[in-house]
Amino acid sequence: MGGATCWKYLPKLLSLHICLCVSGSVVNVWPSVLRKHCEKAGEKRFRLTLPPNHTGVITCRRRQMTVSYNLDVSSTSIIAFLKLQLRWRGSIWKSVMKELVIFTTLFAFVTTVYRTNYFLSEEQRKFWDNFSALFDQKLDYIPLTFMLGFFVTIIVGRWNDIFNNIGWVDNTALLLATYIRGSDEKSRLLRRNILRYMVLTQVMIFRDISMQVRRRFPTLETVVAAGFMLEAEREKYEELQLKYNKYFLPIQWCFTLLYEARTQGKIGADVMLNELIKSVSDFRRGLGQLCNFDWVPIPLVYPQVVFLAVRSYFFLCLIARQSVLIDGEPPKDNNPVYPLVPFLMTALQFIFYVGWMKVAESLMNPLGEDDDDFECNFLLDRNLAVGLTIVDDCYNEAPAQQKDIFWS
Amino acid sequence: MGGATCWKYLPKLLSLHICLCVSGSVVNVWPSVLRKHCEKAGEKRFRLTLPPNHTGVITCRRRQMTVSYNLDVSSTSIIAFLKLQLRWRGSIWKSVMKELVIFTTLFAFVTTVYRTNYFLSEEQRKFWDNFSALFDQKLDYIPLTFMLGFFVTIIVGRWNDIFNNIGWVDNTALLLATYIRGSDEKSRLLRRNILRYMVLTQVMIFRDISMQVRRRFPTLETVVAAGFMLEAEREKYEELQLKYNKYFLPIQWCFTLLYEARTQGKIGADVMLNELIKSVSDFRRGLGQLCNFDWVPIPLVYPQVVFLAVRSYFFLCLIARQSVLIDGEPPKDNNPVYPLVPFLMTALQFIFYVGWMKVAESLMNPLGEDDDDFECNFLLDRNLAVGLTIVDDCYNEAPAQQKDIFWS
Amino acid sequence: MGGATCWKYLPKLLSLHICLCVSGSVVNVWPSVLRKHCEKAGEKRFRLTLPPNHTGVITCRRRQMTVSYNLDVSSTSIIAFLKLQLRWRGSIWKSVMKELVIFTTLFAFVTTVYRTNYFLSEEQRKFWDNFSALFDQKLDYIPLTFMLGFFVTIIVGRWNDIFNNIGWVDNTALLLATYIRGSDEKSRLLRRNILRYMVLTQVMIFRDISMQVRRRFPTLETVVAAGFMLEAEREKYEELQLKYNKYFLPIQWCFTLLYEARTQGKIGADVMLNELIKSVSDFRRGLGQLCNFDWVPIPLVYPQVVFLAVRSYFFLCLIARQSVLIDGEPPKDNNPVYPLVPFLMTALQFIFYVGWMKVAESLMNPLGEDDDDFECNFLLDRNLAVGLTIVDDCYNEAPAQQKDIFWS
Amino acid sequence: MGGATCWKYLPKLLSLHICLCVSGSVVNVWPSVLRKHCEKAGEKRFRLTLPPNHTGVITCRRRQMTVSYNLDVSSTSIIAFLKLQLRWRGSIWKSVMKELVIFTTLFAFVTTVYRTNYFLSEEQRKFWDNFSALFDQKLDYIPLTFMLGFFVTIIVGRWNDIFNNIGWVDNTALLLATYIRGSDEKSRLLRRNILRYMVLTQVMIFRDISMQVRRRFPTLETVVAAGFMLEAEREKYEELQLKYNKYFLPIQWCFTLLYEARTQGKIGADVMLNELIKSVSDFRRGLGQLCNFDWVPIPLVYPQVVFLAVRSYFFLCLIARQSVLIDGEPPKDNNPVYPLVPFLMTALQFIFYVGWMKVAESLMNPLGEDDDDFECNFLLDRNLAVGLTIVDDCYNEAPAQQKDIFWS
Amino acid sequence: MGGATCWKYLPKLLSLHICLCVSGSVVNVWPSVLRKHCEKAGEKRFRLTLPPNHTGVITCRRRQMTVSYNLDVSSTSIIAFLKLQLRWRGSIWKSVMKELVIFTTLFAFVTTVYRTNYFLSEEQRKFWDNFSALFDQKLDYIPLTFMLGFFVTIIVGRWNDIFNNIGWVDNTALLLATYIRGSDEKSRLLRRNILRYMVLTQVMIFRDISMQVRRRFPTLETVVAAGFMLEAEREKYEELQLKYNKYFLPIQWCFTLLYEARTQGKIGADVMLNELIKSVSDFRRGLGQLCNFDWVPIPLVYPQVVFLAVRSYFFLCLIARQSVLIDGEPPKDNNPVYPLVPFLMTALQFIFYVGWMKVAESLMNPLGEDDDDFECNFLLDRNLAVGLTIVDDCYNEAPAQQKDIFWS
Repeated sequence: MGGATCWKYLPKLLSLHICLCVSGSVVNVWPSVLRKHCEKAGEKRFRLTLPPNHTGVITCRRRQMTVSYNLDVSSTSIIAFLKLQLRWRGSIWKSVMKELVIFTTLFAFVTTVYRTNYFLSEEQRKFWDNFSALFDQKLDYIPLTFMLGFFVTIIVGRWNDIFNNIGWVDNTALLLATYIRGSDEKSRLLRRNILRYMVLTQVMIFRDISMQVRRRFPTLETVVAAGFMLEAEREKYEELQLKYNKYFLPIQWCFTLLYEARTQGKIGADVMLNELIKSVSDFRRGLGQLCNFDWVPIPLVYPQVVFLAVRSYFFLCLIARQSVLIDGEPPKDNNPVYPLVPFLMTALQFIFYVGWMKVAESLMNPLGEDDDDFECNFLLDRNLAVGLTIVDDCYNEAPAQQKDIFWS
Repeated sequence: MGGATCWKYLPKLLSLHICLCVSGSVVNVWPSVLRKHCEKAGEKRFRLTLPPNHTGVITCRRRQMTVSYNLDVSSTSIIAFLKLQLRWRGSIWKSVMKELVIFTTLFAFVTTVYRTNYFLSEEQRKFWDNFSALFDQKLDYIPLTFMLGFFVTIIVGRWNDIFNNIGWVDNTALLLATYIRGSDEKSRLLRRNILRYMVLTQVMIFRDISMQVRRRFPTLETVVAAGFMLEAEREKYEELQLKYNKYFLPIQWCFTLLYEARTQGKIGADVMLNELIKSVSDFRRGLGQLCNFDWVPIPLVYPQVVFLAVRSYFFLCLIARQSVLIDGEPPKDNNPVYPLVPFLMTALQFIFYVGWMKVAESLMNPLGEDDDDFECNFLLDRNLAVGLTIVDDCYNEAPAQQKDIFWS
Repeated sequence: MGGATCWKYLPKLLSLHICLCVSGSVVNVWPSVLRKHCEKAGEKRFRLTLPPNHTGVITCRRRQMTVSYNLDVSSTSIIAFLKLQLRWRGSIWKSVMKELVIFTTLFAFVTTVYRTNYFLSEEQRKFWDNFSALFDQKLDYIPLTFMLGFFVTIIVGRWNDIFNNIGWVDNTALLLATYIRGSDEKSRLLRRNILRYMVLTQVMIFRDISMQVRRRFPTLETVVAAGFMLEAEREKYEELQLKYNKYFLPIQWCFTLLYEARTQGKIGADVMLNELIKSVSDFRRGLGQLCNFDWVPIPLVYPQVVFLAVRSYFFLCLIARQSVLIDGEPPKDNNPVYPLVPFLMTALQFIFYVGWMKVAESLMNPLGEDDDDFECNFLLDRNLAVGLTIVDDCYNEAPAQQKDIFWS
Repeated sequence: MGGATCWKYLPKLLSLHICLCVSGSVVNVWPSVLRKHCEKAGEKRFRLTLPPNHTGVITCRRRQMTVSYNLDVSSTSIIAFLKLQLRWRGSIWKSVMKELVIFTTLFAFVTTVYRTNYFLSEEQRKFWDNFSALFDQKLDYIPLTFMLGFFVTIIVGRWNDIFNNIGWVDNTALLLATYIRGSDEKSRLLRRNILRYMVLTQVMIFRDISMQVRRRFPTLETVVAAGFMLEAEREKYEELQLKYNKYFLPIQWCFTLLYEARTQGKIGADVMLNELIKSVSDFRRGLGQLCNFDWVPIPLVYPQVVFLAVRSYFFLCLIARQSVLIDGEPPKDNNPVYPLVPFLMTALQFIFYVGWMKVAESLMNPLGEDDDDFECNFLLDRNLAVGLTIVDDCYNEAPAQQKDIFWS
Repeated sequence: MGGATCWKYLPKLLSLHICLCVSGSVVNVWPSVLRKHCEKAGEKRFRLTLPPNHTGVITCRRRQMTVSYNLDVSSTSIIAFLKLQLRWRGSIWKSVMKELVIFTTLFAFVTTVYRTNYFLSEEQRKFWDNFSALFDQKLDYIPLTFMLGFFVTIIVGRWNDIFNNIGWVDNTALLLATYIRGSDEKSRLLRRNILRYMVLTQVMIFRDISMQVRRRFPTLETVVAAGFMLEAEREKYEELQLKYNKYFLPIQWCFTLLYEARTQGKIGADVMLNELIKSVSDFRRGLGQLCNFDWVPIPLVYPQVVFLAVRSYFFLCLIARQSVLIDGEPPKDNNPVYPLVPFLMTALQFIFYVGWMKVAESLMNPLGEDDDDFECNFLLDRNLAVGLTIVDDCYNEAPAQQKDIFWS
């Protein structure tokens, strides 16, 4: 009973995750949390108390970051272009490569059958000629370009909305630190806990909509272990019986604490209480919006149609692009280089269209685990760390007032 | 007089609806409501009092959910693609299948007439050759791609607006629980009823604009039976004579109660009352917006033009795509496989265009009964349940204030 | 002097307008107004006092409603498609029919000249063959599809903005009823008049921008007669000399009355007064936006270019589409059915493009008199009726507070 | 010293501007201002005191209005279409005419050289034939349609933003009249001046971004002369030394006056002061936005590319469209009418594309001097006149409270 | 220790930057700062104290301004068109020139190989003919137009968002000057410092996201030297240990100071304090948005696909466009001018497409160093200068209240 406990030396590099293999599924432990624990305990090693019935193996993994490339495009030049192209993480090359290899292999196979004399008689080849020419002609029935263009535009709109609602605590934290007065322990507790409850809500909701976060926090116990929640709070949370999700609960705790602070005079005026309530409420609304996007996605038919169109198009290309005609006639001299041209162009086309489609695919679920997806775990840690610093460490701090150099 | 009453054992699975066949039309009863009733009465069976002049047969039906597929696209890969394609509910396959079968059958029939020797003489076939070639050539007069692309983009915008205004009570409920003080029965009544009136307004409006909800609540009596309204309120509601719809009435009750609460001192300050009024008002405004969207749809001509274009295009394809020409010439060897190529490509085209059109059709009325439509009934039940929990069960609750693990 | 007076029995059907032919132009009288008048006077006939120098003939007309078709598209199926197509009011058929008939007639005429031997010699026909083929080839210089697509998208954006600002009084009315206290006659007068002034502003502005409303209210006297304004107010309104429009005046009356109400203690707090002022102000801002849209339309050149392009395209088709070529060659057997194909396809093209253009035309002035346009008169009557009900009849009403069925 | 003074009789028509030629550049004087002056002085002639070192000649000019055509499109019909087309001001015809004439002339010249026997030998003509055919074939390398479509869509978005921020004082004026109490001279002064300072800010900013306004107000002296500013204010304004623009100054005066009014008790509550401040602030923010749009336009490259593409396209057409081929072959009979067809179609194409481009050009700078541009001068005069009427003439006015005709 | 100090005479032209070469990297010093220093010290030369371990060389550079061209397009005419085209800075010519020269050179080289007899035999040339013709035919597999069109539209949306959040202090400065009362030194200090902290936050954030600003302020010492920060503040700032960025700190100082001002009675009411807090908070939120845009760019794949498509297209053109065919046949007379036509058209195409791509490239990072990018350094200086003028120099100033010329 009580879960396993294991010891490990603190990793040197903060940019490394510690992945804890817990009964098969992987849990990530953030170094910052560890460090806190250890420094408090004056140790260089850390101990991890696992939730009951878990055994763990600790490995290290590098932290992945959303791919940022703004520096590469700070001015427009050929160098900038090359720099942009020669990246691997989150690049077109990485996302297209696997499928391009498959496509090329299949194409080579069909070409071999078609162009060598081992498989087809002269008769059959003539038939095949017409057959592939026919396909080639009809390929433009599939309206790839527009489907992709319009679809990506719509997806980008939604992606933007998600991005705008992802939730930063800074504003509320600053308000809390300003409007809730008092340096005594009770006031500090109040400010810290209200802020923590906000981040807790974010954790709860992200667990439902982001694979990254779900993997980090498979159970509420792991949330407690990471310090976002206290044991007593978890019990209180699980006490409430409700068929629907209970993400409002930590927010309601915030509100209750805020009202109490007002009645105790820690908040100076009703208008300030109101402002605080509104600020927390806005934070909640943004997160609620995220849930809604998860609840009602773009109707399934739309991505299905688009993705199917792209893939069936290139499947048909395997046959259609075997045909080599110049203005409807085969070229007179039968140079073996000619068939390379349609293949090369089709491969390029493959890169562009499938790459474009990948944009849509990766934007459709920006909270997923692709290279371009939002770093939800980073956001949670950052929100808690920055928030606590604001409401507690920097409470009521301001530099001594001096004259600036333009004073006259 | 007084309606029939019938008894039934409680269903085990909460995910089943109970459909009550009332004089021909179907009424859905939610298990949660039943369970409440029964538990109060200490029974395992439930009794349904039907409104006067109704007789009922009770059957069970599974609850349908908006099709969610975010998990399938959490990373972009070929597996993800296949997972996405191999769904049935809300999929392109489900929506296109019926019409595709009809199209294929008709196409096969025309082909039979055209290509076998039983129906046409040599002369007639020549005529037919030219005839279908002509049609084929002129088919691109119909600007399918752009019509669909622009139309879908516009429809998606409207769909988004509807989605954003669909109405969640959480924010207001949290405010009510914070600003209206008191644990006595009168205060609890006040909070619960204000919230219930909000959901009631939503019920009233959804009955007008959503087929699902109308079917669940064909009369006001059914609304009363489901607990969204009390009998006395229904009488008061029907008392008011007005030529226009009276959806403002429950909101006005909310406002009256809120003002009373302020005069009785249950609300501590004018600025809080004002905040509450604004919050309820925003909720109403969103619902009003939904009514407006229903009142003034996208001008009829637009969907008519688009849908007609798609369907007449494929109707003409039945003739046009019988023609098999390679660069304007029939292929020399008359292989019977050749005509399959244009058919196959046309079938693919059919799937993509009609699928795209289905996106538009199903987005045009997101409160309807397609697989992708918003689950309005779920929303109503959820709003009431979560709202009551917030304003009553969780009133003034907060965990004991303890130091978090980062405290220093 | 003093205008004519005429008597008429009350119409049975509320859905009929009474059109009053006043010196040539038509005035609509709303039955609801009449009924009010008559019931007060205890009569079954009504008397209409015309403004000076008017003589009137009373006829009846059916009320037109914005075309709503949401019910037809609540699920996507072939039946839904047919239902959608087989409507007449506001449909593509109604809007395209007239021009399609003209186009067909002209086309038939040109065909007759071209294909019969009465008008052209062999020589001339050869010339004509080349001539129309040339035209046919060059027709795609005219970029119809994109012009229409981009134009409609822009127009829809503007249409949406107009729709969002069209003005509903419900929110303000509910605030008035809540924040202005008192059941005495003076308080009731105050609430009723403030609301009436708001609707009056809407009437004034709609008279300028909507033909429907202008026709109903050709003079301020007719506004008085309909009860939106009192005689004394009209005089006060006309007293003010200003070169620019005076729509702000009734709003200023609202503000003055509101401030008075505050000083008399009818409004309990400054924050409430402020909220009321903001609410009325928002209403005014929306209407002001409507005026602005009227003041600065989309630059004339844009619709001109688009509409001219569509119409000149089809004018040229009259010649171009006489040509029947298969891949640049006339078909060998000269079957008289062949010319039907390009005609048929051109007719279809005509329906789709002109239909699309009609969407743009009717959206460009949504306050006009097409079937799809907003029902401004309905809105005005509804706003007044609902508004007065809220601020007066339902003042301070709420049902007795009882326990709901989920109480525990 | 002191500037010239000239006398002139008041123009009868208010719709005429008086243009004052001051040392070469033209200044417009608004009749309303004159009339005011004269009526006060009891004269029928007016005197204009010019700023120092100016001599003037007075002429009259008609006032230009933004082209409004909503009435023409209130219903969709052929008549409406013709009405729309047969306008001149702001029309496609006016904007395209000049360039179309140039294009036609050049085209005729090239045709003359090419088709008559005076300039080219048979050999050369053959060369030319191929040459122009080649060009004709390659012309579609230039992607006119999409560049224009996407560009116009982006420009329209920006145009809309400018339009929404152009600045109306009505809301603030109404607030001023309601919240600043007192009919004594000091209170009236306060209200009038605050409003005037707002319009003054608008004048200052419009002088920088609108050619029309700059021409009317070339110096601050002319602003003083027009009554938007007093001499003392001008001095105070110019006293402030700042490298950057000083448009905030009149707004700061407003704020100072408002705060004073509060301390003197003319404004009844802090919440009212705050509302006034916010209202003035919103007005300023809108104008600031206008400045920003002027500061950072759409990157120059975009319009350059688009406009260059259109013009070079039609330049190449001068050669390319000389070629008359039917499916790649010259027509057998050499009828001199044939070359007319490509010319006609190119001319039409010219009208549509250049017309479309003109839309973009005129929307790019909506504060310029085209027919479609916003009437900035009208707006300034209107804002001042309406604003002063609201805050002063209509202060505290409301009609006597009477029962409306629906009272029961 | 202590850094180098150098003396230099003040530059006459304010439009010149002073570039200070500090250990290799360039620091810009703004003349306005210098002037201030010098005037205070009564000197015509200025002294620059470099941070420790720096040596510097002072050179002068012209200040670059965002390219503004509104004046050129104030009316639409041919002259306006030419004026627009004949600009160099920020123009299509400047951005395309280099790559166009490279393209032309390569094209000329390939042509030389292909068309002269030195390199290829007759046989090889035939092969090459077919080869390039094949490429030419397949080039339209690459969907340049739509990719660019849709991509630019999305980029423009983001660019707009950045532009709207770039941060202006005017509104907050005006509020500070109005609501914080007192002319004593302490009040002045308060107002000046709060404003300075706001601009300081902007400096901090801009250093992270804009190359221009980073180059001007490579270290916090340079920020102190420029007067945006005081030495004591820098120490306080660096004292705080936090793994994440600390941009909230100066804002928190603002809040603390504001709250103090309220408790000291310098701010008259809670509602005013709240308004100030909200205003500063909005400013911060805008800057936070900028950080977020930097944190999560448009997914890398999208620009990669688009830019790669454009460049590979023109690379293939080097071969494909060598082919000269008229309707699939080489022209009969082998005039050496013919090959010029495809080259010319390809060059034009190059200009348009690459130009369009440059729009996208330069919009993607609007805070970079292209000609069209926002002038971040200018904005920072302006915000500080204007802000200090508002809160200090113009505090409580208003002209004497006089009657305007329309007074009656």
